[in-house]
Amino acid sequence: MPNNHVPESAHIGRHVVIEDDVVLGERVELGHFCVLLKGTVLGDDVKVGSHTVLGIQPRGSAFMRQTGQAADGLRVGDRTRIGSHATIYSGSRIGDDAFVGDHASIREAVSIGNGTVVGRGAMIELNTSIGDRCTIQTLAYVTGDTVLEDGVFIGPCASMSNDKYMGAKPFELIGPRLLRGAKIGSNATLLPGVVIGQGAIVGAGSVVTRNTETAELVTGVPAKPRHYVD
Amino acid sequence: MPNNHVPESAHIGRHVVIEDDVVLGERVELGHFCVLLKGTVLGDDVKVGSHTVLGIQPRGSAFMRQTGQAADGLRVGDRTRIGSHATIYSGSRIGDDAFVGDHASIREAVSIGNGTVVGRGAMIELNTSIGDRCTIQTLAYVTGDTVLEDGVFIGPCASMSNDKYMGAKPFELIGPRLLRGAKIGSNATLLPGVVIGQGAIVGAGSVVTRNTETAELVTGVPAKPRHYVD
Amino acid sequence: MPNNHVPESAHIGRHVVIEDDVVLGERVELGHFCVLLKGTVLGDDVKVGSHTVLGIQPRGSAFMRQTGQAADGLRVGDRTRIGSHATIYSGSRIGDDAFVGDHASIREAVSIGNGTVVGRGAMIELNTSIGDRCTIQTLAYVTGDTVLEDGVFIGPCASMSNDKYMGAKPFELIGPRLLRGAKIGSNATLLPGVVIGQGAIVGAGSVVTRNTETAELVTGVPAKPRHYVD
Repeated sequence: MPNNHVPESAHIGRHVVIEDDVVLGERVELGHFCVLLKGTVLGDDVKVGSHTVLGIQPRGSAFMRQTGQAADGLRVGDRTRIGSHATIYSGSRIGDDAFVGDHASIREAVSIGNGTVVGRGAMIELNTSIGDRCTIQTLAYVTGDTVLEDGVFIGPCASMSNDKYMGAKPFELIGPRLLRGAKIGSNATLLPGVVIGQGAIVGAGSVVTRNTETAELVTGVPAKPRHYVD
Repeated sequence: MPNNHVPESAHIGRHVVIEDDVVLGERVELGHFCVLLKGTVLGDDVKVGSHTVLGIQPRGSAFMRQTGQAADGLRVGDRTRIGSHATIYSGSRIGDDAFVGDHASIREAVSIGNGTVVGRGAMIELNTSIGDRCTIQTLAYVTGDTVLEDGVFIGPCASMSNDKYMGAKPFELIGPRLLRGAKIGSNATLLPGVVIGQGAIVGAGSVVTRNTETAELVTGVPAKPRHYVD
Repeated sequence: MPNNHVPESAHIGRHVVIEDDVVLGERVELGHFCVLLKGTVLGDDVKVGSHTVLGIQPRGSAFMRQTGQAADGLRVGDRTRIGSHATIYSGSRIGDDAFVGDHASIREAVSIGNGTVVGRGAMIELNTSIGDRCTIQTLAYVTGDTVLEDGVFIGPCASMSNDKYMGAKPFELIGPRLLRGAKIGSNATLLPGVVIGQGAIVGAGSVVTRNTETAELVTGVPAKPRHYVD
């Protein structure tokens, strides 16, 4: 492995596969059966669980959307922790002090800020930008072409989509846009292109079909504004 | 491995386990740590990511439903691509040019047609038939005893069930039936046995309790017919 | 491996990692690429699929909740079956004759009773108690600090949460409490702290915002009492 950098301080589990052009920071820990594919770069003190695969090259079927360009490696910042059985694609960037849970999956062309938590089994699609100190809880789904500003909270099992016509018509894919500090309740659904205002709150199980105002609370199917009742 | 067929043109990752009675087509690619269990047959140009397990023999607890017969291998058609960390059972068939995403799981006695996409983390239960050119998006759940005709679209996190009494009474399990070109919005819920008409559309987050007509649009909880508003 | 107990009757797959202080009962079967971390104890006749990781030590980011104590091993009872690609943490207990599906994940400080089924891709959070003969279906989410009494049924993709303010205010985390024989329909949502009465039924896709009575049927968003219509 001539093109790798694996420092003496790294703690590597058993049966780990490290491909070419991989660079590990100081004191990195890798669990058993991890796979670090070509071009993966991990910062100092990154910890990774067992069976996690980092730096996957995008490939789909002829029927699926392609980013169309070779992804140029995966970069993970200092002190970030990644669980077991996670899959993260090449061409994405994860900040410092972040957390990616077990079974989570992050596609290519995604940026994730510092201190952000991606829960277990959460799935992040391609071409999405996620800010600092966000929380994306267990089994939540963040669709492609989506923006989450800093401090956004996505409850468990919350869902969203970016394709208004479900493939039936040509349509520019537009994911939701969640402004700073927006909070999405568990199992809520956001339709393509909706904007969730700064500090707005979407109740659990709601279906958001229109934009919400700053600091607005919306609940129901379809979601409508409510007064706060603590 | 005397009973295997692994052609010279295959590209096999590191630490791959190939059990007996496995047959690989030409130019198959297998990622690191893949497991191909007894009786798995892959067509030409199939590509599989890392850590995927193919050909699992069904087994449950004494409290769970059994298919009751030994499953006779898994067959995957030409040019189909399977991601990382997928699990697919013995006794199922996947067509040509299909795609199975990372972390997806497909049980026994399932047939999947040509060109169909099963998204990341999607789960397909036993005894289900899925046609050609369907799209089952990320984290969607297709229950057992279900029929999806050709061209059906299932949005992300959509759910369905096949047991009206949730185990409380004996009941013949009946999954939904989705006719040609039906489209199910993200995080929608289909009750046991409902029929979604040809080309019908179920809005995101809706709960479908009754059959829908051909080309009908239904939304809400419970879902009711709406006029199309583009 | 001087501190292990691996009896002659065990059937161990290829490339399995067994750390120190692991004890296996008689006739245990472990699939390929399994990882048994320090302190894992499996009963007699336990069967585990491929790529499963048992006994994970909890660790999060500085922003995440910690249990604050070293977890003291994972114990799994006799005849319990665990699928492929599951992840189960140290500090939890699983009873006899239980089943944990592929891709399921169970955190630390969880107790699971005898004969309980945890479906594929289901996620169980920390500090939760689950009784005997419960069924938690595919992709269901059981939040932390939750109690499920005996015989509870959780439908596929059902969700719940334990944090009323989504991290915005200090709040004692309180999960739902599901009394004996309660049944939750597919893709239903339970708010923090709700109590689902003994034998109560929550319809598919409902959002439960208040406690339900014994044997009550509730449906809708928000869920309201209904007469039974079989």
